[in-house]
Amino acid sequence: MNAASIVVDEKRLWDDLMALAQFGAREDGGVCRHALSPEDIAARAWLIEKARERGYGVVADDAANLFITRPGRDGALPPVLAGSHMDSQPAGGKFDGAYGVLAAFEALRALDDAGIETERPVTAVAWTNEEGGRFHVPCTGSRAFVTGKVPEPGQIGEDGIALADALRATLDAAPDVERIAPGFPIHAYVEPHIEQGPILESEGLPIGVVTGIQGVRWFNVTVTGEPGHAGTVPQAIRRDALQAALRAIQSLNGLMEDFDDIVRFTVGHVSVVPNSPNTIPSSVTFSIDFRHPARDVLDARAARVADLIAEAVKPCAAEVALTTSMQPVAFPDAVTGAITKAAGAAGLKHCALASGAFHDAAHIAAVCPSGMIFIPCRGGLSHHPDEWAEPADCAAGARVLANALVQLAT
Amino acid sequence: MNAASIVVDEKRLWDDLMALAQFGAREDGGVCRHALSPEDIAARAWLIEKARERGYGVVADDAANLFITRPGRDGALPPVLAGSHMDSQPAGGKFDGAYGVLAAFEALRALDDAGIETERPVTAVAWTNEEGGRFHVPCTGSRAFVTGKVPEPGQIGEDGIALADALRATLDAAPDVERIAPGFPIHAYVEPHIEQGPILESEGLPIGVVTGIQGVRWFNVTVTGEPGHAGTVPQAIRRDALQAALRAIQSLNGLMEDFDDIVRFTVGHVSVVPNSPNTIPSSVTFSIDFRHPARDVLDARAARVADLIAEAVKPCAAEVALTTSMQPVAFPDAVTGAITKAAGAAGLKHCALASGAFHDAAHIAAVCPSGMIFIPCRGGLSHHPDEWAEPADCAAGARVLANALVQLAT
Repeated sequence: MNAASIVVDEKRLWDDLMALAQFGAREDGGVCRHALSPEDIAARAWLIEKARERGYGVVADDAANLFITRPGRDGALPPVLAGSHMDSQPAGGKFDGAYGVLAAFEALRALDDAGIETERPVTAVAWTNEEGGRFHVPCTGSRAFVTGKVPEPGQIGEDGIALADALRATLDAAPDVERIAPGFPIHAYVEPHIEQGPILESEGLPIGVVTGIQGVRWFNVTVTGEPGHAGTVPQAIRRDALQAALRAIQSLNGLMEDFDDIVRFTVGHVSVVPNSPNTIPSSVTFSIDFRHPARDVLDARAARVADLIAEAVKPCAAEVALTTSMQPVAFPDAVTGAITKAAGAAGLKHCALASGAFHDAAHIAAVCPSGMIFIPCRGGLSHHPDEWAEPADCAAGARVLANALVQLAT
Repeated sequence: MNAASIVVDEKRLWDDLMALAQFGAREDGGVCRHALSPEDIAARAWLIEKARERGYGVVADDAANLFITRPGRDGALPPVLAGSHMDSQPAGGKFDGAYGVLAAFEALRALDDAGIETERPVTAVAWTNEEGGRFHVPCTGSRAFVTGKVPEPGQIGEDGIALADALRATLDAAPDVERIAPGFPIHAYVEPHIEQGPILESEGLPIGVVTGIQGVRWFNVTVTGEPGHAGTVPQAIRRDALQAALRAIQSLNGLMEDFDDIVRFTVGHVSVVPNSPNTIPSSVTFSIDFRHPARDVLDARAARVADLIAEAVKPCAAEVALTTSMQPVAFPDAVTGAITKAAGAAGLKHCALASGAFHDAAHIAAVCPSGMIFIPCRGGLSHHPDEWAEPADCAAGARVLANALVQLAT
């Protein structure tokens, strides 16, 4: 057995990627596969069947995280996990998340093909609702795994359905899959992913060894004004929630100014009530996505968000809720070293880089040594129907993963 | 017969107003009765049944305008019309539109009760989709009546259904109502309505004789940017459609500045794509509602809208479409005089005032002498669940209407 000899099946992996992209396929070539949607449930059934064909064990936990396990010599040892998520953005692509799940599944098959026996079990995982596109609190699955319970099961999705109900529907759709409580001991976690940025492509490198993930603060802001008739209420006495929200976002633009362009600040979601052309808006809800690699910067600017908004929206009122807070994460040498060694053994050029996007690995890093493998994506584009990764790069990432898993599981 | 002796039944009218408000009743006491919705269809069926109980003729045209006619001595003469609309804002009240239809219906019954015979037929009308809440091009019914065809039948409503399909469903739901093409000769039109402003209440007057309606320009703006991942795309290279739309609205705020506070400018509808917290918005659509009593002001400022937006949204692109244009309307003395005389005959205090809101009467004024009767509404509030008019004021308006109809129809 020689881990360096592992070669994954590029065509098999690519065919799987294209097959998975059919679940929730958009007409523009992209994917809309909301977490726990009918499309997600069908994608899960497809993957479960493929896992069973291989004889792998399949279990799901209360957060509908899906675990596909290739046994090790010692079944009592905590497994090594690899994977990502299968939900997409509403106007997402074929690779974000999906690649990590299928690269992990391909790694399991590559170990079979190479006749490699590992000491520990190796488990491919698909985490639930990483994107937060349908249920706005993201990383439901990885957070449930870490804390032992589903976070905010009562939260209502974009379609009016509660998370708990969507989880139940998803789990009920696969009644023959063994069900467990969230969380069990794991030895290490590796997440393969497209970079979602331009560095690897511009440097001509197939592999990125991820050193860490920048921190994130998400806020949900609700501005409350007073409705009225657009044709009769004088401007001077209006309390227009949309105009107030606009002033708040202007004020946040000032707060988030950064000469070095390292701060990431996005208002991606806006909802207006009653949203009628001739009624003055009575309330507006908007999201804030704020990221930075340094915790002190995150803390200092986040601390000013609520006060700035309250001042800007006058004479309207605002409620500001911090919905997600992830500290910056640094991945340990144990995992980055294994990935670097695996890339070297496969003769693949690589570099170390940080992740601008957050990932399930940011949560799993709290319970075991974790790391990530990046592959290039065209133009750095992600969360977009045109998201693209080359078949050879997909295979290279899976090969590095398989090699790293053998190191970590043996 | 003495028109001054007409007394309407205050309780009967009030009971009808409360009964109609049950169709689409909101939990907060307001009404959501979108044009041609199941709630609207049920409300129409309720009114048709009441009209038939009285023996009035009922017909509908291709725009689903509903006409309820009390015969005159000479059936060959064009009738006098009175009414308003039955659709509401999504978060609307019990009186906007509904009051005008039911006041007209009450006027017909009051003529019965007083044993008055008119020369011309008198017709109560309910126009379709005045609000534009579901189908954004407003006044579908009155515009169809004036032009002889349904405007923009292919337009898609908020719920994804085409106007033509919603019209067909509404007409099919009342198969025994005679169907006519839109438009027929009418002698005069009177529209009773709540003021939707504060003047009558603050002056302690039950009746407003409306002198005219300010002009309106509606635009629909679509800003197109480039989606991307909120965590990775540097701010400097973003084409964020929401930030661009915000700059456009800021620019319009400057254009619409008015020291005298006579300009009315509202952005009431905003739609963001893909509307996900961690995706940079790729496109944003918003509405502009701009009103003024002077045509030169309307024309001059409206002419600058598209250029200002195109400049403000750079490096994004924008499409600006003028969706509605109504010129200011002055009502003729023939109708305002009849209303003034009717109010005097009933001993009701009144004043002349202009309408800040547009109404179906603005369209009908193009084909016959038209006018409006305003009654006070609490706090000037409208397009709001708390919209309120006192029963005595509702009855006073219907009484003035009945008296004016007798003058105009005889």
